[in-house]
Amino acid sequence: MDFNFTDEQLAFRDTARQFADKELAPFAAEWDQHGTFPKDTIRRAGELGFCALYCDEDQGGMGLSRLDAALIFEQMAAGCTSTTAFITIHNMATWMLSRFGSEAVRQRWNGPLMSGEALASYCLTEPGAGSDAASLKTSARRDGDEYVLNGAKAFISGAGDTDLLVLMARTGGPGAGGISCFAIPSDTPGVSYGRNEDKMGWKSQPTRAVILEDARVPVENRIGDEGQGFKIAMAGLDGGRINIASCSLGAASAALAQAQSYVQERRQFDQPVSEFQSVQFTLADMATHLVAAQQMVRLAAWKLDNGDADKGTFCAMAKRLATDLCFDVCNQALQLHGGYGYIKEYPLERYVRDSRVHQILEGTNEIMRVIIARRVLKDLSFL
Amino acid sequence: MDFNFTDEQLAFRDTARQFADKELAPFAAEWDQHGTFPKDTIRRAGELGFCALYCDEDQGGMGLSRLDAALIFEQMAAGCTSTTAFITIHNMATWMLSRFGSEAVRQRWNGPLMSGEALASYCLTEPGAGSDAASLKTSARRDGDEYVLNGAKAFISGAGDTDLLVLMARTGGPGAGGISCFAIPSDTPGVSYGRNEDKMGWKSQPTRAVILEDARVPVENRIGDEGQGFKIAMAGLDGGRINIASCSLGAASAALAQAQSYVQERRQFDQPVSEFQSVQFTLADMATHLVAAQQMVRLAAWKLDNGDADKGTFCAMAKRLATDLCFDVCNQALQLHGGYGYIKEYPLERYVRDSRVHQILEGTNEIMRVIIARRVLKDLSFL
Amino acid sequence: MDFNFTDEQLAFRDTARQFADKELAPFAAEWDQHGTFPKDTIRRAGELGFCALYCDEDQGGMGLSRLDAALIFEQMAAGCTSTTAFITIHNMATWMLSRFGSEAVRQRWNGPLMSGEALASYCLTEPGAGSDAASLKTSARRDGDEYVLNGAKAFISGAGDTDLLVLMARTGGPGAGGISCFAIPSDTPGVSYGRNEDKMGWKSQPTRAVILEDARVPVENRIGDEGQGFKIAMAGLDGGRINIASCSLGAASAALAQAQSYVQERRQFDQPVSEFQSVQFTLADMATHLVAAQQMVRLAAWKLDNGDADKGTFCAMAKRLATDLCFDVCNQALQLHGGYGYIKEYPLERYVRDSRVHQILEGTNEIMRVIIARRVLKDLSFL
Amino acid sequence: MDFNFTDEQLAFRDTARQFADKELAPFAAEWDQHGTFPKDTIRRAGELGFCALYCDEDQGGMGLSRLDAALIFEQMAAGCTSTTAFITIHNMATWMLSRFGSEAVRQRWNGPLMSGEALASYCLTEPGAGSDAASLKTSARRDGDEYVLNGAKAFISGAGDTDLLVLMARTGGPGAGGISCFAIPSDTPGVSYGRNEDKMGWKSQPTRAVILEDARVPVENRIGDEGQGFKIAMAGLDGGRINIASCSLGAASAALAQAQSYVQERRQFDQPVSEFQSVQFTLADMATHLVAAQQMVRLAAWKLDNGDADKGTFCAMAKRLATDLCFDVCNQALQLHGGYGYIKEYPLERYVRDSRVHQILEGTNEIMRVIIARRVLKDLSFL
Repeated sequence: MDFNFTDEQLAFRDTARQFADKELAPFAAEWDQHGTFPKDTIRRAGELGFCALYCDEDQGGMGLSRLDAALIFEQMAAGCTSTTAFITIHNMATWMLSRFGSEAVRQRWNGPLMSGEALASYCLTEPGAGSDAASLKTSARRDGDEYVLNGAKAFISGAGDTDLLVLMARTGGPGAGGISCFAIPSDTPGVSYGRNEDKMGWKSQPTRAVILEDARVPVENRIGDEGQGFKIAMAGLDGGRINIASCSLGAASAALAQAQSYVQERRQFDQPVSEFQSVQFTLADMATHLVAAQQMVRLAAWKLDNGDADKGTFCAMAKRLATDLCFDVCNQALQLHGGYGYIKEYPLERYVRDSRVHQILEGTNEIMRVIIARRVLKDLSFL
Repeated sequence: MDFNFTDEQLAFRDTARQFADKELAPFAAEWDQHGTFPKDTIRRAGELGFCALYCDEDQGGMGLSRLDAALIFEQMAAGCTSTTAFITIHNMATWMLSRFGSEAVRQRWNGPLMSGEALASYCLTEPGAGSDAASLKTSARRDGDEYVLNGAKAFISGAGDTDLLVLMARTGGPGAGGISCFAIPSDTPGVSYGRNEDKMGWKSQPTRAVILEDARVPVENRIGDEGQGFKIAMAGLDGGRINIASCSLGAASAALAQAQSYVQERRQFDQPVSEFQSVQFTLADMATHLVAAQQMVRLAAWKLDNGDADKGTFCAMAKRLATDLCFDVCNQALQLHGGYGYIKEYPLERYVRDSRVHQILEGTNEIMRVIIARRVLKDLSFL
Repeated sequence: MDFNFTDEQLAFRDTARQFADKELAPFAAEWDQHGTFPKDTIRRAGELGFCALYCDEDQGGMGLSRLDAALIFEQMAAGCTSTTAFITIHNMATWMLSRFGSEAVRQRWNGPLMSGEALASYCLTEPGAGSDAASLKTSARRDGDEYVLNGAKAFISGAGDTDLLVLMARTGGPGAGGISCFAIPSDTPGVSYGRNEDKMGWKSQPTRAVILEDARVPVENRIGDEGQGFKIAMAGLDGGRINIASCSLGAASAALAQAQSYVQERRQFDQPVSEFQSVQFTLADMATHLVAAQQMVRLAAWKLDNGDADKGTFCAMAKRLATDLCFDVCNQALQLHGGYGYIKEYPLERYVRDSRVHQILEGTNEIMRVIIARRVLKDLSFL
Repeated sequence: MDFNFTDEQLAFRDTARQFADKELAPFAAEWDQHGTFPKDTIRRAGELGFCALYCDEDQGGMGLSRLDAALIFEQMAAGCTSTTAFITIHNMATWMLSRFGSEAVRQRWNGPLMSGEALASYCLTEPGAGSDAASLKTSARRDGDEYVLNGAKAFISGAGDTDLLVLMARTGGPGAGGISCFAIPSDTPGVSYGRNEDKMGWKSQPTRAVILEDARVPVENRIGDEGQGFKIAMAGLDGGRINIASCSLGAASAALAQAQSYVQERRQFDQPVSEFQSVQFTLADMATHLVAAQQMVRLAAWKLDNGDADKGTFCAMAKRLATDLCFDVCNQALQLHGGYGYIKEYPLERYVRDSRVHQILEGTNEIMRVIIARRVLKDLSFL
């Protein structure tokens, strides 16, 4: 075992941290307040390669490992968790397209998506199919050289402001095996969008429903074979879970840093708050849990990079543990700030709001437990 | 022991529930979104006596017990936690004035405050004196028949929109013994207000700093004797803690009710979500913790009503336990809603945001532990 | 609501505390070490009426309420949790017999059981029917004026050292409706016992399997009608759950008292350990959780006394909450003692071992959640 | 980063697992029951090199890394946590002697200690100096070529049955700087032992007080320079904490394996218990927390191997997290077994009892928080 980062990893982390400090952190509160989707900023992230971190180099991507990407996302998320979370979803969708898409689709989309000039949404969830994603009902009917899509997607990050929808729809019978994946330009006739959902957090990225009414795409826009869509979606999600977990790490890191500084400045009862043992013990546990969460995420990313047979289990464990522990770290940091933690002049309550949804999406933490339990019951050789 | 409510209590609860259902719940989301301070609604609460629940009848109050009031606030808070929380603070300040104020002050203010035509703010916290309230620096210098006040208060609920400030200031030496309490009309020359703080929740009540620059009030506006201010402030807070805890109970009740209903409607994997055992166990624990929190609040209120020697300890225990458990109940209810819990179309995320501050104010839950521990170390006869 | 104890309750508590201090606490460690079943002590408890606390007076019992009994058991359990737990089971079995038994059975057994001269075991669990008690297989076949019993019971408290088995067996078809209850003298031919199970705690009461091979009892030994056995068993268990929860309260009270005293004597870093804030906060939470647990148990006992429609739900909530919180209190008290908590010279580790099983028996805490959830899903009117 | 084990590590793990399966697991219950200190078994562990895992090869040790040792101890502890824990302490004391001891001491003791023919105890704690170890009072007065030792040590693992005491005593002024370390043959005149403490667990290793009354050792038996004793003791403890944490990992692994198997065999309500979702979720969290704990321990061991500036912080974090999480895993495994978890026929309750003390010794988990907090407050560069 070797827990060292490579020089390259350290360099990427530095770059990401600088980007976070300069391009994200100073604006995060404002984006949160006004619901601004900072597409220009995302484009600048794209200039650094951050919109296609783990896409293959021969496709135009950075060709980094999932572990590299996790380290970068963690740094970025400390600047703006919400914006970084969108960027991770864009990375996931872009990777799916560049890995499984047809030559035509890649030709058309690899360039703009990887540079961040165009943005992609990942469209799996439906109003009636959340945790039970394989029961989705959106249909894609083959009609000559085209597919005709009908149905509705819910809670789609970026939808209405992105350029491409990487969308799962049913081409066959019920269940996972009847699902295919499609690249649907966002302005395709028949595609419309719901209102921008007002959410607790993640306000710098719009969330809308996507409605498909006889929307037509050419056959070449199918990503992968018919019936492979669910597998592709899940392949994307393994990485997606690491990404989201990394965003939680970033939020928690920023929260811990704020708290560590605040308790040494803030005085009560004639001494810095940091001299109270309960404050110290809270900080100690926050740091310990953050490190534990980091290690789980890195282990899972490494398993994914190495094609480990149990990569899915480890991604699920990392997502569950990191998003739970990091939410708690953010929430404890808020508490350490007292009343100041509750007002928007300080970033604490934003960290709490933004990181809260990580326990829900990319598969709820309950679904993570289902995935993990299934593996545990088989045998314990993965331990 | 007798855990039955009286018929009167049941009637008050019904009235409160109807008020909550009709006057609060339908508007809570809107008030939250727009930061509306619903003064008309509060006035209608006043018409029912809800602005002076435990003020003495001979002062014009309802003369109810703290336990009665706790039951009423719990019902109201299920409609709008934030607005109800303000009403409880108004009740506390009004009680302090009507109990300890001079004849002149009572004559002037009892009527409008108790009817809800005028509103009061409780002004204890300062930027540098949060948990260590007794270190407050705002000064009240005697000048003939007047006091001249200088200093600043922070995080004052309602400030800038209320009519009266019940304010603690230093008339003597350092520590608790040098503090006095004052009734300061909000439009007194020399009183100004900071901006309305943008907060995580509690958005239907404004929160502002209060700045005092040579603000003058007649001596008769002192509430209680010189040096009694801290005691009066703490006397108010014992009830205040029960009130805030009751607001947490209300939020948690509403959250549990929403969740209980939602999980039976929502279907996933071809069955209502309520058939999943993890969902059932979560609901079971939510209900159990809610009942435990209710009992603690009611016990503490009863101790306060009966002038128990350890009333302060029980109020602290109730506030600590109820605000912690109920925040968790709200947060679990959010999780049970999946993505729907995170959007403002549903009230779950609002319950979480509103109840979060209850762990911080009226004495943080850490200060509650300090109070409890002090008593525990003395002896265990209170158990 | 009235949280006062009656003078009678206070007197009973005092008597119970004195009994605990004089007859239980000084010997508890020794009984634990040697696995002594202190039948003489139990008889002396019987002399005080503690073996038939809530049996009707006209049957020879004390005629106390469940709440009274809970208060008494709590005090006793602070002296010896394990022995008191057995006494509570004896009370439960004795109550079942005296409430539902035939005249003949009552005539024969009421006297000796209520005086503590004879002891009873409650026999429900089977090796293959733990949580799923209604699936029990022990059969009772009618043969003229007798029943012939065959089968095996597991984990029976007192078995092999008690005089009477109150035993559930199947007289009819599958499920709860086919079960009847029997009073079986322990020396009935065909009844034999397994070895005394070596357990983590509860060592002052033997636990054995009961084997029935053509054991015959007269028909009059049936308690209640045929098919009523499961209902009778469950009626017993509602009280049993309050009793066991009370034993947890006693263990936690004793643990808190030990810890409260120890941390003020023990010095480290030149000061009493009690001056460390983390120690103080731990004590504060222990006390708060103990009070919360007490209230839940008393509420449930009161609901049972009053025949509340939801008494079963409240008993389940009380049992779940109290046994969980009190185990944690005991465990935290152990931790506060450092190394001394781990050795048998101090009682802490015994409190932990004894109270651990309360989370498992009389229905595991998981089964409690099943019971509570079923009620929650129906409606929330019980709140 | 590379999370792969080397082939050598895999081989050592296999050897350790086989040793655990064959030499430890089959006897652990018996040793626990009878308080047997299995010195022969420890000697056989010594034959495999397990008594000097991380001592330098040129001293006769195995020359393995701390990470290697951690992996081995984890496997062994799954067989018998208590015995393995003693072996880890022996390893720690042996390492201290072989690293810092005089040539004469090494000559005399390296051989027998490393082979396991002689055993060593680590003697730091005193009755009045537990967490505040630097306040120890045992004195070592220089008298010509000898030191004369007086005082008492408490809770010494193996004492009375071991051959050598590696003991900290005061040669200078108060505080850490006045402490020196000594190698004291256990049969030195003036050394006597208290009774074998009856403990909650760790029963396969004796624990006794050590009393020193004018016990004399030659100067060459001082390990390191005068005043270096505390540093040496702490250097030992960094590894000791990883070792104890590894023992917790082993106990938790064994507990999880037992539970995973049991829930698939045990049927209730006509299905394997493993089909209940709450059981599945519990298993999922147990596995996740075990993996998280493993990673923390391995990271800390690696930091120690690499002489990382923050190795002490990481060892403290690993010890705190792993011993807490693994105790919980053991305790949850007990619960999953229902009544069977509580009896000694199954190993669950033993895992709970054995792993409980890991939260207390080698520095309580509260002291770990003190260590971690001190580092956190300095800066966060270690993250």
